[in-house]
Formats: sequence, structure tokens, C-alpha cells
Amino acid sequence: MIYMDNAATTRPDRECLEKAQKYILDSFYNPSALYAEGYKINLEIQEAKKRILALIPGSGSFSITFTSCGTESDNQAIFCGGKRGNVVTTMGEHSAVYNSASELRNRGIEPRFAALNPDGSVNTEDLLSLVDDKTSLVSVIHVNNETGAINDIASIARKVKARNPHTLFHADGVQAFGKIPFSLTKDIDMYSLSAHKIGAMKGTGALIKRQDLVIKPYIYGGGQEKGLRSGTENVFGIKLLQFAAEKRYAHLQDNFRAVKAVREHLTGLLDKDLFEVVSGPDSSPYILCIIAKKVRGETILHEADDKGLIIGTGSACSSNDKKRYSRVILACGIDKDRADGILRLSFSPETTMQEAEKAAEILNETVSERIKHME
Amino acid sequence: MIYMDNAATTRPDRECLEKAQKYILDSFYNPSALYAEGYKINLEIQEAKKRILALIPGSGSFSITFTSCGTESDNQAIFCGGKRGNVVTTMGEHSAVYNSASELRNRGIEPRFAALNPDGSVNTEDLLSLVDDKTSLVSVIHVNNETGAINDIASIARKVKARNPHTLFHADGVQAFGKIPFSLTKDIDMYSLSAHKIGAMKGTGALIKRQDLVIKPYIYGGGQEKGLRSGTENVFGIKLLQFAAEKRYAHLQDNFRAVKAVREHLTGLLDKDLFEVVSGPDSSPYILCIIAKKVRGETILHEADDKGLIIGTGSACSSNDKKRYSRVILACGIDKDRADGILRLSFSPETTMQEAEKAAEILNETVSERIKHME
Repeated sequence: MIYMDNAATTRPDRECLEKAQKYILDSFYNPSALYAEGYKINLEIQEAKKRILALIPGSGSFSITFTSCGTESDNQAIFCGGKRGNVVTTMGEHSAVYNSASELRNRGIEPRFAALNPDGSVNTEDLLSLVDDKTSLVSVIHVNNETGAINDIASIARKVKARNPHTLFHADGVQAFGKIPFSLTKDIDMYSLSAHKIGAMKGTGALIKRQDLVIKPYIYGGGQEKGLRSGTENVFGIKLLQFAAEKRYAHLQDNFRAVKAVREHLTGLLDKDLFEVVSGPDSSPYILCIIAKKVRGETILHEADDKGLIIGTGSACSSNDKKRYSRVILACGIDKDRADGILRLSFSPETTMQEAEKAAEILNETVSERIKHME
Repeated sequence: MIYMDNAATTRPDRECLEKAQKYILDSFYNPSALYAEGYKINLEIQEAKKRILALIPGSGSFSITFTSCGTESDNQAIFCGGKRGNVVTTMGEHSAVYNSASELRNRGIEPRFAALNPDGSVNTEDLLSLVDDKTSLVSVIHVNNETGAINDIASIARKVKARNPHTLFHADGVQAFGKIPFSLTKDIDMYSLSAHKIGAMKGTGALIKRQDLVIKPYIYGGGQEKGLRSGTENVFGIKLLQFAAEKRYAHLQDNFRAVKAVREHLTGLLDKDLFEVVSGPDSSPYILCIIAKKVRGETILHEADDKGLIIGTGSACSSNDKKRYSRVILACGIDKDRADGILRLSFSPETTMQEAEKAAEILNETVSERIKHME
């Protein structure tokens, strides 16, 4: 099988798994325990924090809290950061931010959603026009999970702070961390990431925040993570995240170039009469969003699956809400007819040129067969 | 090393790990994905739900939602169940419930804490006296995590509902599930459990609830778990929980008897001049709470550790709040002098008689040496 749904989840990295193996059966102790074996694991978690932060330029004044997933990190940012007035975010957010922000309405806080550009990036002018002196939080997705559009979060955060210096700024970095180079800046207050999108396991995420930012916990209890996230730490998941992040960062530029070449090659091989490309040339190379012009994406997905190619139609998560059209894709200005043909191919550093060629072949063949069938 | 801190966390079960291994590298797909491989894993998660519920008598009209830990399950129960008026719980709760209930005060809901009996069980009369027509939720720990005291949740829930039929009833079953036999009844609305206390991994928990109970999600996003808990499912953790629960339930009575014999043997070997037993004879045999009469528990813990015995002093989690005395132990009516000597030994079905003997020997020796030293 050719696996091209890496934005939904990645196969864990074998090498990193091997390194993390000892945290399953040997170093299994509770990191909050007072005996030496527990304390050693506590130190291992502290080391994971230091090492992950050290990978990100500009992270000197930031700290990191481990959570159970990117979604939980986003929930903490939105619900604990957006405490008053209004919260400004975008139509291009992952549902972890979008649905949390929408829920704020029930709690007396007004959510405001900025419009998107055709490639899925946020319309910065529109976003800024929504920020006022009552805005308590702005949240902008770093890399759009459906189109791959990159938002320049450093620049947007600077402009947001110029309008209201008291507003917190959060970025959902789940599709960016370990994939595209970026820096944390003084205008960014919080940044979410997820382990299973970069070769670690489902069940681990993190929320990076300015050290001096005081926010409430979202999960209350035993006071783990300096009181910011209670619950016994998922040591295996955390160490695996550390190892996977270190590996991704060690090859960040090389991976970026390789994946970009894969995407360009695949894009070039797609039949232009059958497919339209949504992702812009400057988007994250890890995601390729295309529209099959006359066939439903879901139909293609199933036929490609039968032929050995695994791809997605927009966000995997959005399959749960049973809506036919992707909110994000419609917000890009794509009409319902075209939105029906949306496909998302997403790559990992392991994706090969041969796989790209085979994928293009399967996609071209599937759609042209379908069209013949319809005629 | 003799490991007697199983109430803090257990070493994952090798046999179950082997069965769950395939969900790491092979069946790693996103369960929300539309292609066959994703859907198959979705079915595996549904099967885990069915199988876990089927283990618990009386669970016919209940459903189960997977969460990231017992603490998250408790947070969902408290924050999404306790919406108005007052919330009644006990002084004997794990901090996941206690601190969540305390936080409700900041949200305009009054938390009320019922007194404990000397063994750590709740004083039912006191609890019932706190329930009135404004009570939206009652939460009672099933097995106290420090003393092992068992609360008869079915009976308490019945009495609570007799006082106010509109009150929800939640039980934190983290130290009970897979260890002591119990049934779900019509008066119980929610029940929390944790994976890593029964031989599965940290990072997975569950909230069981009446099928017809409508509560809000606590983590918003992609709508996984029928909208009740968003975030990509931790498939490996969930399947491991299923396998571990099935294994524990297959031997529930045998394990109970074996662990009880281990605890009785160990208790019998402790020098009565040096130790006082807090746990009652009818408490969960998986926990033995004792008081060293003249030496600090923490001192004993470290010396025992050096001699090859791993034990706890009360809850591992409580080490994070840096308080010298356990809230629960003080609420049992134990004065500060005695509370200083608290030790918690907690067992697993793998704990042997030989280990019990060696543990008693190490404890007797450590405390008598210390006392000699002081004289």
C-alpha cells in the first residue's frame, strides 16, 4: 500500500520506537513517585521538554506542557486563554480550534472568524479588522490541515499585538511542527503540537507557552506538569515524541526539499484535464490538496484504496461530523460542485518518487475510468 | 526490586502488550479515515467498547467513551455533570475529583465535601445531609486510593437519588475497575476508569455513562467518540486497555483472593510495636495503608528503596502539591504526628507471598534501625 494520508496520522518511526521501548516495560514507574525510579523518569520528562524546546529557534523564554493530543492543547489555549470579550480566529482552523471557539458563544464570549484567501491562508486584513480592545485571544492555524497553506504567524502575531497588546496569540502548529522551519517570537503566547503527525504515537501532544504567561489548567487533579495538566504522564508517548521531534529536526531542511520534490513530481504527473490544484506553490509541501473535476472525492478515495493508494478527502476528523462539504474548502471560495471532488494527499519524509508516480497513475486512471463510465 | 506501588501505576502486562503490538506499526491508521484500513480500526475500537462494557454486570444500558486518563474522565464528569447549584463529593476523593470540584467554586457552583470514617470510606449520613434540591451532581470515589476503603456506590447512589432524583451520580472507579467485583445500577450515571492501574498503559482512560444521559463534551474538536471526546483515538492504548481488562476480569475472583492472602500475610508479619494498620479488613486487598509509629514515611520509603522495596506514601499524585500531610489521611481523623508515618503498599495479581515476606522484613528492619538510631 502507498500511504499518502500522513496529515491524518503517520506510521510511528521504527528507530524512535526502539529507543522509546524501555519506557514501556522497564522505566514504567510513576514520574510523581518519591522513590529513585520515579524521580529518574521525572528527570527524563524534564529532559524531553528541554530537548524539544531547544529544536525551535526563539524558544528561549518558552516552556512546554505535555498533553494528550493537539486537540487538548488547542482546547486549553482557547478555553483558558479566551476568557473575556471576544476571541478572533479563522475559517481555516482545524475543528479543535473552530469548535472550541464556537462553544465560547455558550459561555458569553463572542467568537469571530476571519475569511480565507483562495489557497486557505487567512485574509490578514480581515483578521486584523476583527481584533478590538475587547479581544482576549487570537488563534491562527500555522499550516492549514486541508490545503497546506502556511500562515506567517510571526508577522500576524506582531500585527495583532500592534492593534491590541493585551490580546493573547495562539497558533495551532499541529501540521507545522517538525515539518516546516519556523521561530517562536515574543508576540506568540501559545503554540500547539501533536506527536502522531511526525512519527510518534497517538495520545501525546504539547502546548508551548511563554514562561511568564499565567493561564489556568484545563485538566485539574494531581498537579502534574506544574499544575498545568494533571494526570499521570504518558512517559512512553512523551519520550517517543522527543525522539521523533529530534529526528525530524535533524533533517528538517532535507526532508522539506525531498517532500517538495515528491509533491512537485506528483503534481506534474496529474492529468490537468482531470484535476485542479488547490494548494499554492508556497504551501507546506507535506500536503497537496486537489480537486477531481467531475468525480466525487469519496468515490476516488475508495477506488484508489482498492488499487493500493491511501489518500484522504480533506481532514480525517471532519468525517465525524457527517457534513458533505468541508467548511474550510468552502471558505476558500470553492463552490459546492468543485468541493465535492476534493482530495488531500499528504506526505512524509519516507514518501518516495516511485510512490508519487504510482499515485499519479492510479489517480489519473481512476478518474478517467469513472468519467468514461459516466458517459 | 519488589514493586509495591501498583496503585500509582502498574507494569504493563507482557501478554496483553504482545496482542496490542500490531496497533503500533501495522494498524496505525486514523480511525476516522474513510478508507478500509481506517474503518477497520474504527470497528476495533467499537469492539473494545463492547468487550469492556460486557465485563461489568449491569452495564446493559451504559456506553463508554475513551479518554486520555482517569483524571480527564473525572474532569468531564465534574465539569460537564456539575452544571448548577451545588456539587456534593467527599473528603476522600482523588485530587482529580477534589480539585475539579474545588474549581467549581470559581464558576459559581458550590462544592460540598462529606466527612470520612476512620478507614477512609465516606460517612454516608454526612454525605446525604449535604444533598438538597439544588445538588446537580454527587461524586463518590469507589475505592479510596490511599486507604483502599470501599464505598458501596450502588447503595449510596440509591440513597442519593431518593433524596434528589434529578441529581447525577458519578463514581471514580480508578482503583476499583479490574480489581474488585461490582455492578453498575440504574442510579449510577457515570463511572471513571484508568488503563495504567490494571496492566495497560498511561495515556488511556474511559468514562462510562448511561446511554441516555446527555452531557457536554469536555474536549471539543473533530467529533470523535460521537462528539463526546475529540482528538485522534489512541488506538494502541485503547486496545491494550481492552486486553488488560479482559485478562483482569477473567481472573477477578482468583486475583482478589490471592492479593487478599498476600496482604494478610504481609500485615501479619509487620511488627505491631512499629506499625499501625489504617486499612480496614473489608477494604480493597490491593491497598494496604499503614502508619510507622515513630518514623517519617518518606524516610522509610527512601531506605526501603535502597534495600530493594518500592512503596508509596499516600497518593503519588499528591507529591506534586508539596503538602506534608495527606488531606485524605487527616480527614480519616489521624493526627499530624501519625500522618507523618503514613505508608501505602499496593499490590498486583503478580505480587508473591515471598515478596510480601521480604517486604515485611525490610519494613520492620528499617523502622527498628531508625528508632535505635534516634535513641
